Amino acid sequence: MSDTPDSVVRTYIDTHRAAFLGDLADWLRIPSVSAQPAHAADVRRSAEWLSAKLQETGFPVTEIWPTAGAPAVFAEWPSGDPAAPTVLVYGHHDVQPAARADGWHTDPFEPEIVDGRLYARGAADDKGQVFFHTLGVRAHLAATGRTAPAVNLKLLVEGEEESGSPHFRALVEEHAERLTADAVIVSDTGMWSEDTPTVCTGMRGLADCEIELYGPDQDIHSGSFGGAVPNPATVAARLVAALHDEDERITVPGFYDGVVELTDRERELFAELPFDEAQWLRTAKSRATLGEAGHTTLERVWARPTAEVNGIGGGYQGPGGKTVVPSSAHLKLSFRLVAGQDPDKIERSVRDWIATRVPVGIRHEITFGAATRPCLTPLDHPALQSVVRAMGRAFGQKIRFTREGGSGPAADLQDVLGAPVLFLGISVPSDGWHAPDEKVELDLLLKGVETTAYLWGDLAAHWRAS
Amino acid sequence: MSDTPDSVVRTYIDTHRAAFLGDLADWLRIPSVSAQPAHAADVRRSAEWLSAKLQETGFPVTEIWPTAGAPAVFAEWPSGDPAAPTVLVYGHHDVQPAARADGWHTDPFEPEIVDGRLYARGAADDKGQVFFHTLGVRAHLAATGRTAPAVNLKLLVEGEEESGSPHFRALVEEHAERLTADAVIVSDTGMWSEDTPTVCTGMRGLADCEIELYGPDQDIHSGSFGGAVPNPATVAARLVAALHDEDERITVPGFYDGVVELTDRERELFAELPFDEAQWLRTAKSRATLGEAGHTTLERVWARPTAEVNGIGGGYQGPGGKTVVPSSAHLKLSFRLVAGQDPDKIERSVRDWIATRVPVGIRHEITFGAATRPCLTPLDHPALQSVVRAMGRAFGQKIRFTREGGSGPAADLQDVLGAPVLFLGISVPSDGWHAPDEKVELDLLLKGVETTAYLWGDLAAHWRAS
Repeated sequence: MSDTPDSVVRTYIDTHRAAFLGDLADWLRIPSVSAQPAHAADVRRSAEWLSAKLQETGFPVTEIWPTAGAPAVFAEWPSGDPAAPTVLVYGHHDVQPAARADGWHTDPFEPEIVDGRLYARGAADDKGQVFFHTLGVRAHLAATGRTAPAVNLKLLVEGEEESGSPHFRALVEEHAERLTADAVIVSDTGMWSEDTPTVCTGMRGLADCEIELYGPDQDIHSGSFGGAVPNPATVAARLVAALHDEDERITVPGFYDGVVELTDRERELFAELPFDEAQWLRTAKSRATLGEAGHTTLERVWARPTAEVNGIGGGYQGPGGKTVVPSSAHLKLSFRLVAGQDPDKIERSVRDWIATRVPVGIRHEITFGAATRPCLTPLDHPALQSVVRAMGRAFGQKIRFTREGGSGPAADLQDVLGAPVLFLGISVPSDGWHAPDEKVELDLLLKGVETTAYLWGDLAAHWRAS
Repeated sequence: MSDTPDSVVRTYIDTHRAAFLGDLADWLRIPSVSAQPAHAADVRRSAEWLSAKLQETGFPVTEIWPTAGAPAVFAEWPSGDPAAPTVLVYGHHDVQPAARADGWHTDPFEPEIVDGRLYARGAADDKGQVFFHTLGVRAHLAATGRTAPAVNLKLLVEGEEESGSPHFRALVEEHAERLTADAVIVSDTGMWSEDTPTVCTGMRGLADCEIELYGPDQDIHSGSFGGAVPNPATVAARLVAALHDEDERITVPGFYDGVVELTDRERELFAELPFDEAQWLRTAKSRATLGEAGHTTLERVWARPTAEVNGIGGGYQGPGGKTVVPSSAHLKLSFRLVAGQDPDKIERSVRDWIATRVPVGIRHEITFGAATRPCLTPLDHPALQSVVRAMGRAFGQKIRFTREGGSGPAADLQDVLGAPVLFLGISVPSDGWHAPDEKVELDLLLKGVETTAYLWGDLAAHWRAS
């Protein structure tokens, strides 16, 4: 079903394409690097620029929300229809650091279009993907003759995502009432490839911890005492080794409790993707795959929980040898979680498991960081169906499904607002997120515009507010 | 049997005690710290001082032997008896660094006698224990009326022991012919305690290695790739964990091949020592014992081979967490070896074992350091019996047996010269080697003098040159 004439949308986008790209270039010129204090004023300027642009776009409400760090931008455009669903779009206006000296072929903050690609820091991550919503909603209005979008449209564009979103949860909690939504649409992700448009249906969660293991009060002589007292580095290693069984399954009791297993249909859909293991290994800069038995690589990184050693250390670190039993050792572990796993329960299970495995004579301390919950939207969710239809119209292709192996602040929106999270991104793996020569493919960027031009009407037609 | 009247020896020592201690104090004033380049001249001065003193003692041959580092002192006093055995005494004239600010109650290089203890850096380790041989050989001559010792007496006093004896092996090889001996007596060790005089019969050997494990070309994102590629930190941990079985026995195939097991008699002798586990744990600054099943703590540190992690590292080491699969990890392992184990064979076994355990996709490099062989003199060796008798006369007590868990350059003498190594030391655990307030007990120091005064005659009487 199609409530918006596609040709009208395409004509509208064509007509406004130049102005849209010119505006985006203006925004990309602002080096809103949240991780670098010297750019704090630029991050504020970026928020002000976006707020003004959203007002110009037609959002009747635009606000700059301060945080303990960099400010976020909020905008709201009510539908006027009491039965219309409310959609909250999430993105971020801060960017990764970038300097010509890192290997850029152009100035990272002077956008250039070459061969249909717009090169600039933030072109894909995430200014380009936030920005397609501005032209998208205008095209939606133009094609439908409406004066307000078919859904209640809210935007929350944070300014600290590249710094780990340290104040995002507090921001969402503070403004929870204003942010209420029936669905969250995250535009800070990607698709499988230029040729294979996809929609992402879930994101793994994350629990991480640091474990300190204390043995002798100081490093002691391994000739005098070695082999007769517990060595904390050995204990650390034994913990790591015991984390997985021979099938690379995690051995912590209860770890898999509640895990939402992949359905046969989902496994089929993953398997339909044109996955090239050699290419994937090149991207992973690795030489072999290794993971949980009975699962493919995509299943392992998208839909299975993991336990990973991010750091290990203890004892002598200098050149050559030193015959000591180390006084202490440490581990940094992280657990990727999937739907059905509760980070609090995982923390308790890991704590209990470690406590039973640390031998007498070794003292241990465990510190867990703030956890991120997993997100998963069922394939038959009406909002997801709308996203798939809208993308299908824009791309003229079958839309396939992916998931995201990483973890992100969108989970805070899910938790606080109690709304499902959908992912609408048009970036592709070659876009160079966090790397030199970041770019966005203009064709795909405009497909993003077109997708949102169809999406709001489709959503309103197929899904009423709860 | 006693060829030297004990009373004559004691009177001689009493008469010369003051001059002996005055001379030792002069030597201790020279800060011969081999690890500190600023003291290089002091180390040379220490060698010259000792060489002159040995000449004054009566050694017809005294030489300073240069090395690529600090010089050693060699002295030789032939017996004149063609059938006399040849004994080479080993010690060192360099000392550990020391500064008042480290917590010394006196100037570490201004010897002071307080309550029968001589405080100074090097008092026990090792100048005091080298120096008792000077008065000892004079007392031997005085009591026997000889003009030359009953054995061919050689001294080799190196200047780099506290720096790891980097040139000692080359020195011994260079002068192997001059150093030829029927037995080596090392005076750089200790006894069980003031109340329990002991002789050490063996020393463990050492093989150590560094293992580098390489995974992804750079740290990669644990959300995107974790759980699907091998993690070199996990591999490092699994190697460490697999090194021991549940009985804390080393699992490397062939590791225990040839190990000279303790006899029932040796285990009984160890068990006779007044071992106080709580006190030992305080010395080890540890809270529990842990080691190879079926062995006591003393057996574990003296007579059993071990595998110890001296250092482990990989991945993120900064504050907080970082969700990476590390690019590399490293291990520093050391193996203490006992009689019957061949370091070259151990190296091959460890290399083979690691090669079979590193998974596809991880590249590894192993570097072994220079190994030290174990030493062990059988309890019934005639030279050991002489040492026990001489000590027994000096101490008026039963002499018990210990071993040394550490490893030292004496093994080079054993290897190059093909001579058994005996350990004659009078230091006690409270002497504070490498620590502030190092001291030697004057009573024990003079027992050392007395022991050597009896030893040369006893050796010559009971053991003829081979």
